[in-house]
Amino acid sequence: MKNSSQSNVTENKHLLLVPTRGYNYDKIDKVNQINLASAPLKFRAVSPAAERLRHILGDDDSTPTPTIFTEMDTLQHEGGELEWKESARWVKFEEKVEEGGERWSKPHVSTLTLHSLFELRTCLQTGSILLDLEGYSLPQIVDDIVDRQIADGLIPADLKEKISFVLLRKHRHQTKKPIHRSLADIGKSSAAASNPAQSRSMNDISDTPSSDQLKNKFMKKIPRDAEASNVLIGEVDFLDKPFVSFVRLAQATTLGGLTEVPVPTRFLFILLGPHGKTKSYNEIGRAIATLMVDDLFSDVAYKARDREDLIAGVDEFLDEVIVLPPGEWDPKIRIEPPKKVPSAEMRKSVLNLNELGQMNGSAGGAGGGEDEEMIGGGLWLDIKRKLPWYCSDIYDGFHIQSISAVLFIYLGCITNAITFGGLLGDATDNYQGVMESFLGTALAGTVFCLFGGQPLIILSSTGPILIFEKLLYEFSKNNDIDYMELRLWIGLHSCLQCFLLVVSDASYIIKYMTRFTEEGFSSLISFIFISDAIKKMVGAFKYYPINRGFKPDYITAYKCECIAPDQGESSVLCMFNLTDLDWSQLSKKECVKYGGTLVGNSCKYVPDLALMSFILFFGTYSMTVSLKKFKFSRYFPTKLRKLISDFSIFMSIMAFVGLDMLMGLDTPKLIVPTEFKPTRANRGWIVMPFGKNPWWWYLASFVPALLVTILIFMDQQISAVIVNRKENKLKKGCGYHLDLFWVGVLMAVCSFMGLPWYVAATVISIAHIDSLKMESESSAPGEQPQFLGVREQRLTGILVFVLTGLSIFLAPILQFIPMPVLYGVFLYMGVASLSGIQFWERIKLYLMPAKHQPDFSFLRHVPLRRVHLFTLVQIICLAVLWILKSTFLAIIFPVMILGLMVVRKLLDVMFSQHDLAWLDDILPDKDKKKKEDDKKKMKEKKTPEPESDEEVRGNETPGLETVFLVVVYLIVCQSICCVAPDTNTVCFSSLSHSVAEKALYNTYYSLCPPALQSLSC
Amino acid sequence: MKNSSQSNVTENKHLLLVPTRGYNYDKIDKVNQINLASAPLKFRAVSPAAERLRHILGDDDSTPTPTIFTEMDTLQHEGGELEWKESARWVKFEEKVEEGGERWSKPHVSTLTLHSLFELRTCLQTGSILLDLEGYSLPQIVDDIVDRQIADGLIPADLKEKISFVLLRKHRHQTKKPIHRSLADIGKSSAAASNPAQSRSMNDISDTPSSDQLKNKFMKKIPRDAEASNVLIGEVDFLDKPFVSFVRLAQATTLGGLTEVPVPTRFLFILLGPHGKTKSYNEIGRAIATLMVDDLFSDVAYKARDREDLIAGVDEFLDEVIVLPPGEWDPKIRIEPPKKVPSAEMRKSVLNLNELGQMNGSAGGAGGGEDEEMIGGGLWLDIKRKLPWYCSDIYDGFHIQSISAVLFIYLGCITNAITFGGLLGDATDNYQGVMESFLGTALAGTVFCLFGGQPLIILSSTGPILIFEKLLYEFSKNNDIDYMELRLWIGLHSCLQCFLLVVSDASYIIKYMTRFTEEGFSSLISFIFISDAIKKMVGAFKYYPINRGFKPDYITAYKCECIAPDQGESSVLCMFNLTDLDWSQLSKKECVKYGGTLVGNSCKYVPDLALMSFILFFGTYSMTVSLKKFKFSRYFPTKLRKLISDFSIFMSIMAFVGLDMLMGLDTPKLIVPTEFKPTRANRGWIVMPFGKNPWWWYLASFVPALLVTILIFMDQQISAVIVNRKENKLKKGCGYHLDLFWVGVLMAVCSFMGLPWYVAATVISIAHIDSLKMESESSAPGEQPQFLGVREQRLTGILVFVLTGLSIFLAPILQFIPMPVLYGVFLYMGVASLSGIQFWERIKLYLMPAKHQPDFSFLRHVPLRRVHLFTLVQIICLAVLWILKSTFLAIIFPVMILGLMVVRKLLDVMFSQHDLAWLDDILPDKDKKKKEDDKKKMKEKKTPEPESDEEVRGNETPGLETVFLVVVYLIVCQSICCVAPDTNTVCFSSLSHSVAEKALYNTYYSLCPPALQSLSC
Repeated sequence: MKNSSQSNVTENKHLLLVPTRGYNYDKIDKVNQINLASAPLKFRAVSPAAERLRHILGDDDSTPTPTIFTEMDTLQHEGGELEWKESARWVKFEEKVEEGGERWSKPHVSTLTLHSLFELRTCLQTGSILLDLEGYSLPQIVDDIVDRQIADGLIPADLKEKISFVLLRKHRHQTKKPIHRSLADIGKSSAAASNPAQSRSMNDISDTPSSDQLKNKFMKKIPRDAEASNVLIGEVDFLDKPFVSFVRLAQATTLGGLTEVPVPTRFLFILLGPHGKTKSYNEIGRAIATLMVDDLFSDVAYKARDREDLIAGVDEFLDEVIVLPPGEWDPKIRIEPPKKVPSAEMRKSVLNLNELGQMNGSAGGAGGGEDEEMIGGGLWLDIKRKLPWYCSDIYDGFHIQSISAVLFIYLGCITNAITFGGLLGDATDNYQGVMESFLGTALAGTVFCLFGGQPLIILSSTGPILIFEKLLYEFSKNNDIDYMELRLWIGLHSCLQCFLLVVSDASYIIKYMTRFTEEGFSSLISFIFISDAIKKMVGAFKYYPINRGFKPDYITAYKCECIAPDQGESSVLCMFNLTDLDWSQLSKKECVKYGGTLVGNSCKYVPDLALMSFILFFGTYSMTVSLKKFKFSRYFPTKLRKLISDFSIFMSIMAFVGLDMLMGLDTPKLIVPTEFKPTRANRGWIVMPFGKNPWWWYLASFVPALLVTILIFMDQQISAVIVNRKENKLKKGCGYHLDLFWVGVLMAVCSFMGLPWYVAATVISIAHIDSLKMESESSAPGEQPQFLGVREQRLTGILVFVLTGLSIFLAPILQFIPMPVLYGVFLYMGVASLSGIQFWERIKLYLMPAKHQPDFSFLRHVPLRRVHLFTLVQIICLAVLWILKSTFLAIIFPVMILGLMVVRKLLDVMFSQHDLAWLDDILPDKDKKKKEDDKKKMKEKKTPEPESDEEVRGNETPGLETVFLVVVYLIVCQSICCVAPDTNTVCFSSLSHSVAEKALYNTYYSLCPPALQSLSC
Repeated sequence: MKNSSQSNVTENKHLLLVPTRGYNYDKIDKVNQINLASAPLKFRAVSPAAERLRHILGDDDSTPTPTIFTEMDTLQHEGGELEWKESARWVKFEEKVEEGGERWSKPHVSTLTLHSLFELRTCLQTGSILLDLEGYSLPQIVDDIVDRQIADGLIPADLKEKISFVLLRKHRHQTKKPIHRSLADIGKSSAAASNPAQSRSMNDISDTPSSDQLKNKFMKKIPRDAEASNVLIGEVDFLDKPFVSFVRLAQATTLGGLTEVPVPTRFLFILLGPHGKTKSYNEIGRAIATLMVDDLFSDVAYKARDREDLIAGVDEFLDEVIVLPPGEWDPKIRIEPPKKVPSAEMRKSVLNLNELGQMNGSAGGAGGGEDEEMIGGGLWLDIKRKLPWYCSDIYDGFHIQSISAVLFIYLGCITNAITFGGLLGDATDNYQGVMESFLGTALAGTVFCLFGGQPLIILSSTGPILIFEKLLYEFSKNNDIDYMELRLWIGLHSCLQCFLLVVSDASYIIKYMTRFTEEGFSSLISFIFISDAIKKMVGAFKYYPINRGFKPDYITAYKCECIAPDQGESSVLCMFNLTDLDWSQLSKKECVKYGGTLVGNSCKYVPDLALMSFILFFGTYSMTVSLKKFKFSRYFPTKLRKLISDFSIFMSIMAFVGLDMLMGLDTPKLIVPTEFKPTRANRGWIVMPFGKNPWWWYLASFVPALLVTILIFMDQQISAVIVNRKENKLKKGCGYHLDLFWVGVLMAVCSFMGLPWYVAATVISIAHIDSLKMESESSAPGEQPQFLGVREQRLTGILVFVLTGLSIFLAPILQFIPMPVLYGVFLYMGVASLSGIQFWERIKLYLMPAKHQPDFSFLRHVPLRRVHLFTLVQIICLAVLWILKSTFLAIIFPVMILGLMVVRKLLDVMFSQHDLAWLDDILPDKDKKKKEDDKKKMKEKKTPEPESDEEVRGNETPGLETVFLVVVYLIVCQSICCVAPDTNTVCFSSLSHSVAEKALYNTYYSLCPPALQSLSC
């Protein structure tokens, strides 16, 4: 017996640990040389390791293995006493206890040496492997391990006592402390004080988790199902060769204070060895710890049947390691965890397929099947798709982030409402003013957010609508037509037309809105936002002119006096009893009102306000930008930073409202109406459809309605496309048809109430989405938070618009907000909505030397000059749009989006499909679709199936009944319209209309058949 | 013959390339198992590879091997034709030709697979190795290679033709084009156009470098002595097993168009193989290419005697590689080159010592021997040290960077001169005013920069001196003493005292100024700069009060009128003939002058100027910060960015001067004197030393002079220490004694001319250094530019001060610069000089959660709470200093630096030397020094050597003669001083002196022996 044990020892004498650097790699190649000549191309030999793994991993995929938390403890002599001190831990990445720093390092990628991996392999080959050991306490487990080693003849029996003693020493853990505690410590601690940052626990005494363990905040970083693997590394003087043991327990068991957190232990790796090789032992410990948290190896460890399986796992790991050349990297640098790591699934599948996984860049490509499914299907499918989410649409809104989103969007909305309200009031002689704007925004927004297909979209007045209203009002006034009634009929027509578009599945057109179109449109809208904000700011300098030549010393020479008018010429004003007036006491406005003259060199200047406005404007903008960026700074805990970033706009507004109050200057403030009544006295809340205009106007309004419909359709749908962008990772699906349906309904309602018309506002909708973005809480230390999606719900939208409605009561608070602050917010919105656009990134490339350009994937695959060319085309399109927008053509602006889509179609000629796939999306193949349609039709003809299957109906072209409806509607309306100009615009060229209006008329008119045209004047 | 060849082939049949992933690592461990039991601790076995390498590398260190440039070309079928296309290149890091991008990737660390390295090793073991082949042209070399393969029986002879044909195909290189060319290309190119970004060259035709090669701008990235290694990788259909050849030419030879740059080729690695394994071949090519640019392996490649040496090189490389676990890193991520890589020397020395190089953190530590040498040695050594550099001190200044530095520092200096000049004028009733300040700055600065020991130091007036002058002037006025004469004598005494300090090597004290003291002092000065700038800005709001309640509408109510005084009370003023005055036409100042009263609600307000000043101030500051940061942006070529960054301050000033001119507001401007005459009419340019004050004042001025001397000494030396900081990598040495000598001389000169006294200005000196920092031009692509040091020269300083002197003539230009712009520059200076300070970094740590803290080395070694405690001590010291500075004690402010040094000494008790070594520097060991001194003295006593050896004299304590001089000087002066108060401050307590002055008197007075004190009143 003794003899055999002896021989065993001899056999295993060359146990482990090459004492020097330097391998002899000669033996490796012998094994692996397979002449290619004998291996035909298709034949792929499988290494024994891979085959083993495939076998054990392929067996049962039913039980996913738990996540492993690894702790490495090293044996230390502390005050003459032996103890195990935690030196590193792994959840996914390595955290090390800093040698002198008594603190955890940042999580980093474990950089290993090739050495330690080979040495570990040797350890596993020669040490004792105990799989599925029944263990309930550490002493019993240690007993079993040592007994096995003795039985295997690896150690003499007389060492049992000593080894057990060492293995049962206390474990001291590095517990993480919150910063405020460590700050408080500063006071108490002195150089000689004992270290309170570390807790001791006697693992050999208690089997229940200690309070230190339970209190450990690190626990929340570890998944619930996690099990621990403990790595124990130590040097002892009584061994003359290493003692290695790898243990897998049959059941994960909490072994007292062995682990820093109350996680049950499943694996144990013990390496004790003679003195002198600490560094080497530590590296082996790090290697096994790294292996244990490797997704693939941990699977292997759970399922291994024997020693060979484990070694196969190591070999597989070795096969996949990434090697950095020593001359190009400093091993002392800790590598920050990457944003993304290859998933274990992919690695496993690679293993099964036994290929290196040469993925050919599939290059984004068009949305694909799912997308198609989402768009088709019409209104009914939209409702069916959105209905199941309705409850979650409400309760998903309960989150702190929603508050910030509501405040942000609310301020954006009321600013918009006031701006457009003011402009509309000017344009329509207050038929629609600020009051109507507020009421309309609140009404339309609330309804849309309650019932719309995509509640993340924010409705608002838009520029084209404003221009249309302006032209319409002028036309009515000049032709003595009742504006409100005409408008009502246009609204009704437009509503009907929207319904037609819904029924005819016209939203299918969005398939042709690729990134190119989206980017063009949203950049343009962003630019308009930015330029409007800046224009408003510049306006302040005109509205509050600065007295440039002011000399402080000659203050005595500056005055402005109101001089009474000559008594002779102001005979008309005599009724005011002007002679009694003290002219010098009049204010500027009064003076002008009563016909006085302002005389003096300070009359036309207003001090300080322009500059103060600028400071408020620019300050709000820059503070918002800085606070947004604060999320990426190093200061304060992540949660606080996120909070600051989320509330950046609110905080900036508060800060600059505060500054404004402090300065006490009379800057222009946000004034909301405080009384609930129409802006214009002689109109009510309901517009009567009949009675004021000739009957045929009710039909003729079809033509302007057509323009409004195109306007609304394009504006609405492209904004919806941008909101539903794949990058936003929306999960609850879209509802283009449903959206359009409600926009149509609201169109009619608003027309009846004499409120402005509403449509999706691109920039505010993007801002809404941005303020609701979710990121994963980083679970394992060092793992980067991932963008999860957007908090899709209806609550924020509803709240925003309810608040808008209530703003009338909030007037006392809102009046403290200076307008320049809100313009600053507008500027921010414009700039922020630009930042996510790839087009913008590509423009920046022009200014970067090639070597500094970021590693965009499209740059790896498309030549730079093609990228530049593509960007240039976009810039030209944008410039053309911008110029058109600045002319009277602004009214057909949304139609120009169609132009963009045409340009995109032409790009198919200029660029290869490969380039376009990287830079844009591929257009849906029309021919292919046609063919499919043809096929379907053929099929339908042959076997006319019932139309119960919505999927089929979805992709179907509009039914005959729709076409019929449209045709009838068109013919009736158009013929009436063409007769109309006859009576009303009798000699419209003689009237002093603007060019814009003429063009508008001509456009309408040209739609008439020549025969009818001849009837007009 | 044929037979033997056949057998050879059989033997080598299992040549290479395992067709699958998965190695069998079983054979590795067998070789390397050495039982530790048999290897005693001290014994370190050496692997055969390491031994080989040690042998060949150790042989001749005389010839450093050239740098290697590696190009990898792969065989491509282009339009039915075979050609070699460049696919990657290495200078130090890898640059890849992007597959579709037709462009170079960013330089990155080559991440290899373990596989490819083992396969490469196999290739080298089985392929043909031709060392020191005589080659003059590619065809001949190819011939030799193929012949050798045939001779070795590796390929059948009939393949010769085919292989030669393939190897002699054209090479197509990826040439880098400047961005403007590629921009221009956009217009011309279309999708089908041939690719102009690539050049072809027929390597089999020409042997001289082609014009494409010569034009290649990449050449300048390659060191001059570089030689090329070419890696050719290809798949061919006529081979059934790989053809591998490694060639080293006897002489580096230019082989036509083989390489993209005209660099002679030394190494060739050829791998041709059957189809189907492209990826694998490419990886092997990348592996050998990476090896070839490895410092160690390239040495091996140059010196290898046979195949085994090469393989040993690969093994050594494998031993040192860094391994990343596959689950923690995505191999697709390109790793950016690190800031620093371990040097080849270290790796070689490690090889020789055969240790893993466990470096024990030597932890910065005190300056060490060299430093000591630099400080000691007195004036003479300083001169001897600086003199050889004198010529280079001039011509090193010729650089574009100097222009920006001169402009920046010049503006700082004149702003300082004007500020201090103004304050001094106020304090001394214009005995010293702006004119004197300019003249003095110019004079003192020029002299110091011409002859001083550290010409990077900028002299300036400082706060403490200002306070001293103020007190002195008040004292003189109250006691009817001639201020200028008293001041002259104080200056002369101070000058003498400085000389004594120079002679006595007192500058040795700077050894005790550790980082703690430096940081405390320079932070304080920075804070003063920042707070002064902000105070000035706030002052603008007081100076130009804003009319907060202003209502634009009531502009008519705002006026300010000058009302004539009552005729009765203004009888005194009758002589002005006031009755004739039109009071309403008077300006504000005139009105007040003539006794009028300003009446009106706009009198005390000044519009716009305060806000405009704020915009200018803050704008200049933020624009400077942004432009400075621009260096790290991605836009524009590096050189342009550097230029923008260098000239950031100038550009910001220009921009805001422009804005100010555009606005045309009457903001306060920089007004420099335009006439060369003393500010006060009744003083000349020379102060006479005798005649106005009683004789004993000439001696009594010793006491105030003592204060001035301490003030100057401390201020000067600590600024010099900060400038000479190790981090600045100054190469021309310091000259503390010489500096002090010249400060003393200038003291006397300035006193004679009645100009202010000057001393080193910390913040401006730091700004000077910052604006002269040099960085290495990055040589290899991807290598980070290293901070090389500072452009040490006298030219910028001289120019700054000459310009300051000429400012009188520049007044017409300078008057456009608004003061707020300059305050913005001041703010920037203050903030920028804070940013480099570790103390500041440590303060930031308070706000960071531990996991976000940067990886400072001291954090790895010192527990966080000790770091925080140390920082807290510094903060408290700083707070105390700040409070003291704000009281009358400001005058003894520099003495407080001594206090800092005492606190630092006390820290030795609170902190362990280990912690201090990381957080601060170790104080020089006094005891040790004493002992050494003692030893030296003993030695001197025994063998009194001649004092010709300056080195000895340097470390020597002040000679007896110095001590004697000092004692005599002290006794005479002090005794006179103590008698002095008797007659002059007869009842000084009865006079209305400020507390500060009393304290000053008491300080002086307390120095008198009691006996003499009793003589005073």
